[in-house]
Amino acid sequence: MENKKPVTLIKIGGNIIDNPTELSQFLSDFSKIEGNKVLVHGGGKSATKMAESIGLAPQMIDGRRITDAAMLDVVVMIYAGQINKNIVAQLQAKNTNAMGFSGADGNLIQSDKRNHPTINYGFVGDVKKVNTQLLETLLSNGIVPVFCAITHDGKGQLLNTNADTIASELAIALSEVFDVTLNYCFEKPGVLFDAEDDSSVIENISQELYSKLKAEKSIHSGMIPKLDNCFNSLSKGVQKIKIGHHRMLQDKTALYTTITL
Amino acid sequence: MENKKPVTLIKIGGNIIDNPTELSQFLSDFSKIEGNKVLVHGGGKSATKMAESIGLAPQMIDGRRITDAAMLDVVVMIYAGQINKNIVAQLQAKNTNAMGFSGADGNLIQSDKRNHPTINYGFVGDVKKVNTQLLETLLSNGIVPVFCAITHDGKGQLLNTNADTIASELAIALSEVFDVTLNYCFEKPGVLFDAEDDSSVIENISQELYSKLKAEKSIHSGMIPKLDNCFNSLSKGVQKIKIGHHRMLQDKTALYTTITL
Repeated sequence: MENKKPVTLIKIGGNIIDNPTELSQFLSDFSKIEGNKVLVHGGGKSATKMAESIGLAPQMIDGRRITDAAMLDVVVMIYAGQINKNIVAQLQAKNTNAMGFSGADGNLIQSDKRNHPTINYGFVGDVKKVNTQLLETLLSNGIVPVFCAITHDGKGQLLNTNADTIASELAIALSEVFDVTLNYCFEKPGVLFDAEDDSSVIENISQELYSKLKAEKSIHSGMIPKLDNCFNSLSKGVQKIKIGHHRMLQDKTALYTTITL
Repeated sequence: MENKKPVTLIKIGGNIIDNPTELSQFLSDFSKIEGNKVLVHGGGKSATKMAESIGLAPQMIDGRRITDAAMLDVVVMIYAGQINKNIVAQLQAKNTNAMGFSGADGNLIQSDKRNHPTINYGFVGDVKKVNTQLLETLLSNGIVPVFCAITHDGKGQLLNTNADTIASELAIALSEVFDVTLNYCFEKPGVLFDAEDDSSVIENISQELYSKLKAEKSIHSGMIPKLDNCFNSLSKGVQKIKIGHHRMLQDKTALYTTITL
């Protein structure tokens, strides 16, 4: 059990994607990480901008954004096309042998179209199965997989999928074969005791502390699905999870939050 | 020399991409081809439509279309995103383990930005190097590579590249290791003696006949770079080249043109 090879899995969000200087700095740091690594990227604001510029109005039902067919087309273009290929080209320039994927590619991530009893989310997928064997083959050939948040249902339909969930499902699948460290990079230096105070980083969140902080409502809404994902991943075999600003990847003095069961 | 494994390389153009019924029929036929295979797809009209809908005017210099930065963004989105991922998802549904690539992915196709003495083509790349070893690894793992017509310069820049050229350069590179059959599929049943008569398919074009037909001007302008590409590929090791309608892939009675040195 202790002989598993390590793999570093990093998820970056819109705050990095939307800022070319930040993205370039992150990609430099990422390219310096040694050994097996995987990148998962979110979308940022460009899909919304593109939707607006071609005259698509956001489809909302009960306050939730719906991915209709036209919006799916846009997110596929932007996430799997523009963002993914530009990241891959930049990593190649930094001597990292990146290869960009949607879940359809090599059937790497298959999803089920979300079937909610009351809300029709449209073309949204919940991860069902990761092709761990092919991922392992790619990693053992020195490939650095770069995933966008698009999956498929195996029946020819592409689906929009939450990037945090993709990261955690990939981490869980890889933990069968690898010793996985999952890093969620976002705009804050970690999970904060006080959302207004960047120095209030919680060094470690255990399940016990998490329950306490949720009860006290000191952990805010957006953080809850992220942390639920983390505890789910840890309970399913992921070795280590860190949440923080991407500077934690290379700056040994940077603060971050570790999540433990 | 005779022990090389066979690989079938197929290039499809805009006429198939722009017609969902035709595309679906082609992908069914493609999925039935046995053994190693590679697909290269062109772009069709959707990049131009998208450019129009976001208010980009085509940039023309001396009657030639220029790929400026905004147009490059559009072709990357459409070719590497929308078209490529939809093809991959459809092939997966047909039990073909497709994986979609730009040339940046795995550094599979590196180009040089075109440096023309008098015309600035913008972000257009001419193929410089194919990563044959990685392609061979992918094929030997049962992967079916699906290439769009986007490459990169190895310095972080994506480049728009002619799909016919990508097909011929991939064919040449693969011929080092494989016995390559290259199929160009287009709207006509082959190269025609008379452009107006679909039954006038030339069964075989040798270099000698090609010179004669060019001199007589019975081969029209768009066909010339295509055939030049073919003869170049054959002289560099590609085993066999066919040009015709995609029905030639499964319909044994279909006409097509074979190109020989």
